[in-house]
Amino acid sequence: MKQLLIVAHGSRREASNEEVRVLAAQVAEHLQLSADKVQAAFLELATPSIATALNDCFTQGVNEVSVLPYFLSSGTHVVNDVPREIASVQAKWPDKVIKVLAHIGAAENMVNLITDTYR
Amino acid sequence: MKQLLIVAHGSRREASNEEVRVLAAQVAEHLQLSADKVQAAFLELATPSIATALNDCFTQGVNEVSVLPYFLSSGTHVVNDVPREIASVQAKWPDKVIKVLAHIGAAENMVNLITDTYR
Repeated sequence: MKQLLIVAHGSRREASNEEVRVLAAQVAEHLQLSADKVQAAFLELATPSIATALNDCFTQGVNEVSVLPYFLSSGTHVVNDVPREIASVQAKWPDKVIKVLAHIGAAENMVNLITDTYR
Repeated sequence: MKQLLIVAHGSRREASNEEVRVLAAQVAEHLQLSADKVQAAFLELATPSIATALNDCFTQGVNEVSVLPYFLSSGTHVVNDVPREIASVQAKWPDKVIKVLAHIGAAENMVNLITDTYR
């Protein structure tokens, strides 16, 4: 069982967190996966936390989770905070696989996305 | 004279701010514009600030600036902070046009960008 976890910063505005959850659902649909195979989690200010989301996956029998840091640039959240949260969960589940993907801002097609928005 | 200003949060990690500047240069190249027609600016922690970048544009004779909030979700930065900075510059330059585009997280193709990253 595999899983995609989209990890966002989290906001005090609940509408903003809900945007990320809706996006996760849209990605699941686009990948023709059941909704629970793509989930959102948050570094702070919103739930579920990264640790809670990962623990839930592993408790439910998922063996491998790909984590997509939904951040635009490799600031301290991407470089330090998200890896620290993941490492602490990995230590509890040594037999499970957590793959950390490149942050979304590093995606090759980001330039196209911006130019499409500007045109 | 028109201009695109990519407004990011800004980071204490200068390498992270530089990513945004490089992206601005790539967008200019992709749009076949001279490099100074697409610039990066930052809400905090990095330079130039939004106000400095906009003031520089207008001083140099640019009449219209499109501002792309380079944020993934419509949190308080997108809803309150960026508009407040822009409003304060607009008040000083009533004859200039500042268009605020939708934040990048609202781009229609974001779902595709995520699925491409996951596959």
